[in-house]
Amino acid sequence: MASVDVPVALLGYGTVGAAVHRLLEESADEIERATGHRLRVTRALVRDTSKDRGFSPEPGVLSDDFATIRDDPAIQVVAEVMGGVDPAGDYVLELLRAGRPVVTANKQLVARRGAELFEAAAAGGVQLRFEASVCAAIPVIKVLRESLVVTNVHRVLGIVNGTTNLILSAMEGGRPYGEALAEAQRLGFAEADPTEDVAGIDAAAKTAILATVAFGTRVPLDWVDVEGIEHVTLDHVVAARALDMHLKLIGRATLVGDRVDVRVGPAFVDRHHPLAAVEGAFNAVMLQGDAIREITLEGPGAGGIETASAVVADMVSVVGTTGTGFLQNDPVWRKLERLPAGDLTSPFYLRLEVDDRAGVLARIAHELAAEGVSVARLVQQPGDGHAVLHVVTHEAPAGRVEAALTAIRALPESRGEASALPVVSDRGVEELGWT
Amino acid sequence: MASVDVPVALLGYGTVGAAVHRLLEESADEIERATGHRLRVTRALVRDTSKDRGFSPEPGVLSDDFATIRDDPAIQVVAEVMGGVDPAGDYVLELLRAGRPVVTANKQLVARRGAELFEAAAAGGVQLRFEASVCAAIPVIKVLRESLVVTNVHRVLGIVNGTTNLILSAMEGGRPYGEALAEAQRLGFAEADPTEDVAGIDAAAKTAILATVAFGTRVPLDWVDVEGIEHVTLDHVVAARALDMHLKLIGRATLVGDRVDVRVGPAFVDRHHPLAAVEGAFNAVMLQGDAIREITLEGPGAGGIETASAVVADMVSVVGTTGTGFLQNDPVWRKLERLPAGDLTSPFYLRLEVDDRAGVLARIAHELAAEGVSVARLVQQPGDGHAVLHVVTHEAPAGRVEAALTAIRALPESRGEASALPVVSDRGVEELGWT
Ligand SMILES: NC(=O)c1ccc[n+]([C@@H]2O[C@H](COP(=O)([O-])OP(=O)(O)OC[C@H]3O[C@@H](n4cnc5c(N)ncnc54)[C@H](OP(=O)(O)O)[C@@H]3O)[C@@H](O)[C@H]2O)c1
Ligand SMILES: NC(=O)c1ccc[n+]([C@@H]2O[C@H](COP(=O)([O-])OP(=O)(O)OC[C@H]3O[C@@H](n4cnc5c(N)ncnc54)[C@H](OP(=O)(O)O)[C@@H]3O)[C@@H](O)[C@H]2O)c1
Repeated sequence: MASVDVPVALLGYGTVGAAVHRLLEESADEIERATGHRLRVTRALVRDTSKDRGFSPEPGVLSDDFATIRDDPAIQVVAEVMGGVDPAGDYVLELLRAGRPVVTANKQLVARRGAELFEAAAAGGVQLRFEASVCAAIPVIKVLRESLVVTNVHRVLGIVNGTTNLILSAMEGGRPYGEALAEAQRLGFAEADPTEDVAGIDAAAKTAILATVAFGTRVPLDWVDVEGIEHVTLDHVVAARALDMHLKLIGRATLVGDRVDVRVGPAFVDRHHPLAAVEGAFNAVMLQGDAIREITLEGPGAGGIETASAVVADMVSVVGTTGTGFLQNDPVWRKLERLPAGDLTSPFYLRLEVDDRAGVLARIAHELAAEGVSVARLVQQPGDGHAVLHVVTHEAPAGRVEAALTAIRALPESRGEASALPVVSDRGVEELGWT
Repeated sequence: MASVDVPVALLGYGTVGAAVHRLLEESADEIERATGHRLRVTRALVRDTSKDRGFSPEPGVLSDDFATIRDDPAIQVVAEVMGGVDPAGDYVLELLRAGRPVVTANKQLVARRGAELFEAAAAGGVQLRFEASVCAAIPVIKVLRESLVVTNVHRVLGIVNGTTNLILSAMEGGRPYGEALAEAQRLGFAEADPTEDVAGIDAAAKTAILATVAFGTRVPLDWVDVEGIEHVTLDHVVAARALDMHLKLIGRATLVGDRVDVRVGPAFVDRHHPLAAVEGAFNAVMLQGDAIREITLEGPGAGGIETASAVVADMVSVVGTTGTGFLQNDPVWRKLERLPAGDLTSPFYLRLEVDDRAGVLARIAHELAAEGVSVARLVQQPGDGHAVLHVVTHEAPAGRVEAALTAIRALPESRGEASALPVVSDRGVEELGWT
């Protein structure tokens, strides 16, 4: 790159796009110090060029015609900040194939069409960076790819959706789910249709991307076992509190031998675990590896300016490493299999409603033992005529726990509810200090 | 860099050096995938080549003569993992001047001789990377320099010494300082002479480096106001607990206009602050900036293999970005002044021992008010004949708080002790939920 002046383009000029433009202008000096180049937005694609915009580009920059960007040979990096899988995916593919580096903030695009996109990047000999697609300003992709290159990361645990974390925090304060959701909507944290957040769809895309980068194998979105928070009740929150834990929506990716397990769902998090303290709309990702033990990154996982800061960092990294071989390629380098869902082990929390009479405990203990599930702690809470049992198990395969629950539900003493949630702890449950 | 095979050298082959060698060998494939190059250790400097070593290099690799490294033109990166300021500093200078990129894990060297070293790197046209010098495996330098390039970081808060954090954690469990220190020594976390850790010397070097990189101005070590944990007592720990806070040794760097304040000392950390949950020998650094609000990185801050993982990541980054302009230069680009120590504001915790008689509270309140220090919370704890007052103030300049303490100590009712510690909170003290 000979020129000091580097023309760049944006696909999209909404919340994130306008913030990218503002950051590029305000930080032009910092960027020049870091890279020797000044990045200047010469084109930005929108649907409606006549719309009123807070931070407006110079006349002639906005365009509703993708060809003005595709066909301008001066443009050296393009940031895709328009969202959606179509037509964003096709635009990005065309650019990469034409040898144009691309930076994207689009988690659904990377999670769904990553394979094609990285193939096109390799064919075009250019970089595709995607830091902003996972947890906005938290630089987890760069850290995974550049700092943890030799650490063999085998587990990723994350709170990767701020909206659900905010709702669960509010529920810990005593509000029922519906009220907490309505409050998040009122505050602008949840959409009018909150499905993408509360059903775990957003978290699933991010967890799939994290797993792909961490393990170097393509993790398709449909491998992710997803459960949202719609069925979480105050009972769960109260039980967590009583056990000195926090209820969180956790994205988990685990490398087991040469197979992977990726899932998103509510979990109990031990109070001493670094993820337990993540409050409100914040995100955090813990990376566990051989050489590093564990590194946790925490910060804002959304927001226009926060996301834009990651987009700009990626643009700066592209400009700063053009011409070298450094990590321009597909993060994927091996082909691992999906672990059968029932094989993943974890400690579990079980909530069982049973008749309050002699012998029930023994029968439940028997069913758990029959599946090899051993009990670390049991609290019996009397109700009127029935009892609620709170059980925390030692590490056990999810499939065996599910089988034990099925057997328990079939007991004549069962009063219906028998549910399980994984427990996230950085220590064995036997060290949780229970007596 | 034409060759796929890249000869590298180590200065030092101790705990970290041997681990670097092992990681380079074990992860040769990963590194080749990332950079297209295989890094091979062809020389390692030691004092005693005949010493028995766990992980031994091939014959001919160990040398006690620096010239064998300096004069070998094939060597393309050198990792300095020998420690000490002399002769390590002179070796690194010679290498940089000769156009050889260097990676170092040596905090004292970077903190004391950074200016010279970066000047030599610029003159030689090569990179000097130093990730491992601050918090081992936690990639805070890379994140600051490459991910937060446009975020205007204005505050860095860190738990950057694992030994003292471990000791303070043990004190929270009820052990007095001496016993907690002895335990840390027994476990191998503290040296026989623990001064560098407990007096804050290690934390001061790391905080100076963090401030230099975060603010882009050279922060000499003697600007850092340092207080260790030697005088922390169980009284402090108990008072912290009663106020729902944790006592931590905190490194703090603050940008105030165009002046900087850098200090290391014990502080009270609000229970909800991300640093409060950092337990045992772990480290964590919180970076606050305009675009990102705050990002916290947590992980192991020491250990041979953890430190080696950062050294190797730096070597990989050097090899992966050679030939580009990306961040090879001195992180320093401006010249800021040191803020007068008394001007830095913070909420403070005050512990005052006074006679238990009428009117004392009024006189103390008067002295605080006279300095413009306003009280957020006050707890009076009766003793025999005297009382201990625990005061948490609103944000106030350290100098005014110190002046108020001096006045309070001079009161006839004062029983001697009148001490202050800063309070770290991510919320205003008025939001701490006290009534
Ligand atoms: N906002 C966040 O907090 C956040 C956080 C992380 C990631 N992201 C990701 O960042 C991306 C952008 O988000 P955003 O919040 O900035 O969205 P937004 O405010 O809705 O902006 C979208 C922009 O793209 C343009 N656009 C959309 N479809 C287009 C099409 N078919 N042709 C031409 N232009 C089109 C829009 O044009 P008009 O202006 O003419 O409508 C608008 O300028 C998404 O992938 C999102 O997932 C956002
Ligand atoms: N260990 C950690 O957890 C950690 C964490 C962060 C940073 N660091 C930093 O990493 C660096 C190395 O630490 P370490 O724990 O690996 O130290 P170490 O085990 O004492 O090893 C030092 C090595 O350097 C060699 N050496 C020392 N002075 C020398 C001299 N004048 N000439 C030639 N060789 C010399 C020694 O040779 P011999 O083997 O012949 O004695 C030894 O191989 C230090 O700067 C330290 O602050 C360490």
